[in-house]
Amino acid sequence: MIKTDILIIGAGPTGLFTVFEAGLLQLKCHLIDALPQAGGQCSEIYPKKPIYDIPGFPEVLAGDLVNNLMEQIKPFQPGFTLGERANTIEKLEDGTFIVTTNKGTKHHAPVVAIAGGLGSFEPRKPLIDNIKAFEDKGIEYFIKDPEMYRDKKVLIAGGGDSALDWSIFLADIASEVTLVHRRNEFRGALDSVEKVQNLKNLGKIKLVTPAEVVGVLGAEKLEGVVIQKSGDNAEEIMKEVDHFIPLFGLSPKLGPIGDWGLEIEKNAIKVDTFDYQTNIPGIYAIGDVNTYPGKLKLILCGFHEATLMCQSAYQRIYPEKKYVMKYTTVGGISGFDGSKKEAPKAIVKAID
Amino acid sequence: MIKTDILIIGAGPTGLFTVFEAGLLQLKCHLIDALPQAGGQCSEIYPKKPIYDIPGFPEVLAGDLVNNLMEQIKPFQPGFTLGERANTIEKLEDGTFIVTTNKGTKHHAPVVAIAGGLGSFEPRKPLIDNIKAFEDKGIEYFIKDPEMYRDKKVLIAGGGDSALDWSIFLADIASEVTLVHRRNEFRGALDSVEKVQNLKNLGKIKLVTPAEVVGVLGAEKLEGVVIQKSGDNAEEIMKEVDHFIPLFGLSPKLGPIGDWGLEIEKNAIKVDTFDYQTNIPGIYAIGDVNTYPGKLKLILCGFHEATLMCQSAYQRIYPEKKYVMKYTTVGGISGFDGSKKEAPKAIVKAID
Ligand SMILES: Cc1cc2nc3c(=O)[nH]c(=O)nc-3n(C[C@H](O)[C@H](O)[C@H](O)COP(=O)(O)OP(=O)(O)OC[C@H]3O[C@@H](n4cnc5c(N)ncnc54)[C@H](O)[C@@H]3O)c2cc1C
Ligand SMILES: Cc1cc2nc3c(=O)[nH]c(=O)nc-3n(C[C@H](O)[C@H](O)[C@H](O)COP(=O)(O)OP(=O)(O)OC[C@H]3O[C@@H](n4cnc5c(N)ncnc54)[C@H](O)[C@@H]3O)c2cc1C
Repeated sequence: MIKTDILIIGAGPTGLFTVFEAGLLQLKCHLIDALPQAGGQCSEIYPKKPIYDIPGFPEVLAGDLVNNLMEQIKPFQPGFTLGERANTIEKLEDGTFIVTTNKGTKHHAPVVAIAGGLGSFEPRKPLIDNIKAFEDKGIEYFIKDPEMYRDKKVLIAGGGDSALDWSIFLADIASEVTLVHRRNEFRGALDSVEKVQNLKNLGKIKLVTPAEVVGVLGAEKLEGVVIQKSGDNAEEIMKEVDHFIPLFGLSPKLGPIGDWGLEIEKNAIKVDTFDYQTNIPGIYAIGDVNTYPGKLKLILCGFHEATLMCQSAYQRIYPEKKYVMKYTTVGGISGFDGSKKEAPKAIVKAID
Repeated sequence: MIKTDILIIGAGPTGLFTVFEAGLLQLKCHLIDALPQAGGQCSEIYPKKPIYDIPGFPEVLAGDLVNNLMEQIKPFQPGFTLGERANTIEKLEDGTFIVTTNKGTKHHAPVVAIAGGLGSFEPRKPLIDNIKAFEDKGIEYFIKDPEMYRDKKVLIAGGGDSALDWSIFLADIASEVTLVHRRNEFRGALDSVEKVQNLKNLGKIKLVTPAEVVGVLGAEKLEGVVIQKSGDNAEEIMKEVDHFIPLFGLSPKLGPIGDWGLEIEKNAIKVDTFDYQTNIPGIYAIGDVNTYPGKLKLILCGFHEATLMCQSAYQRIYPEKKYVMKYTTVGGISGFDGSKKEAPKAIVKAID
């Protein structure tokens, strides 16, 4: 059982910044995310695109914003349960919560902050009958650890940035990379499309287009796929592969959280703007996942919501204490790792 | 008469970021500030100190944050009325406002955003009977344009960072710099105290401590001051000077805004968190100057409030239009100066 002060569901920018604000109040955090990495939409959908409306950054790449946030929260040593979806919640008699993931990991905390964005990112899967039988046995929808593909025969399906970028990346690692797409045209950064064209010319990526994977086969684990080529050379071919990675994009689903008894409006969780608490005391909702009059789904709004929420969480955890806010410039930062940051102090000194 | 869409009172971080969010909605802004420079508390009180809780900045000097914000809003070409205090407001029949400063400058706008922080910064003045007679005639409480002091005899009073830093700065410009302080000890950055000690040793700054300026004299303009030395060598001395600059710190005062008919609670303006509007439709209050249940006087909260406010201001100005929010990453930034920033577009291209 993982224990923490604030259990955060969703490691997007809002969830990450919560760790910082909680840390200032000396509260510890643990984050759960369905994705294999932190950063939410910023990391998963547009890491290399610039954002222009983060205050103080005339321009920042979404991926860099996430890196900066990770650096900012480092002193507060958050825990992470990545690649798992928070499925169920149980309120204990003492008012604390147990949250269990789809893989059975249990988390126990007095406060739960749902920072789930548009929902848990679930991969769009190809419509192949027996595909489930090979999931995690040769079929993966995310690439968690590229080393897993060293010297293997890999087939990637898809026509967007993920399919292009991973084909490029794995071309140096796998023994064979095949890229299958149902059209001849790919949609992505110019640079990526050109790189794939080069690697194809060099024979380092095999391209099969227009085509679709229509079948998967194997005994214990995946051994091959059936590819249906369309267009002029329409035919069905069998191809031996160790891994099949369909990268058809992710679609966010509020998912199991929708059944937790929270008040939902337009697919978002209703909160009070006093402290962004939901209708269940002790469960808060911040960032894109919540709604209230005037709500805007912007990163900078999530930061504000996280900050106000932490004050309320503190009162819930320490009802008898009174927290007096100190500016970080004045009080500095005391990390759980023993680190201390503070502004150089003024000195008082005679001049003679 | 200065005309604009949103008239912002206060050019602190909140007021500055408002220009950006308004600009995204193609609304123009003009800012009034009592201080001679933008940045509010960040520029005036702690420009060289680090802030740790601006999201995405593990550490940023307050002055750098202001510079970044100025850079971020540049495409939206805000106007500035600096060194003037907004004194009166008048609501016209058509629901628009005229705001007049202490120097008589008039501003006309359909929306007024008060981002006045802790209030207009007013200098603490020495208790000298006829001091008013020489204000702006040799006595200044702010240094707006250091060139004004070239080859002049300048006397600075004070014992903190401002007094130290301006003495250092003017030592190269003025013909004579005298620093008067009522103690021998100065309170400031170690570096500044050491520099003043050096300049004193070199004869470039004259130090008179412990002492106080107790009188000012002149005909049309300031010609000299009376200094009361205390301690062992107590005596009263007359000193010829062209300028006397008392730097005893600033104290913020809600001031005239307190009489505008706005609902005030604990020295702050009450607002609704839906859009941060006050009890007078068309007048908003954002940042440190406002209050609502859960309010925290933090920079990041001002950013959020400014953002929601702009949506409401847009509806007030264009009641018939419906604004559809676009992510900056997707829609880019179109400056009023004709500049355009946008993310590189994805391409669709065949690989053959
Ligand atoms: C193309 C694009 C451009 C954008 N441009 C801008 C912009 O310029 N400015 C701006 O402010 N915003 C922009 N946004 C929106 C911005 O990315 C979101 O507002 C922001 O990511 C919301 O942060 P969050 O932390 O609330 O949620 P998210 O970033 O959505 O993160 C939520 C996380 O929670 C996880 N999760 C949800 N449910 C569960 C569960 N049950 N179990 C485990 N994990 C779960 C998800 O997997 C996800 O990782 C843009 C978005 C897109 C897609
Ligand atoms: C030493 C110190 C350390 C701090 N550390 C932090 C920190 O670590 N993190 C954090 O988030 N915050 C910190 N703060 C607080 C932070 O500086 C404020 O929250 C922030 O400056 C508020 O911004 P603002 O734009 O609302 O108001 P301000 O910065 O106060 O700006 C308001 C401006 O309005 C002007 N004004 C007011 N009335 C009038 C009028 N009638 N006419 C003309 N001009 C007017 C004032 O002159 C002023 O320039 C700190 C503050 C101090 C003093």
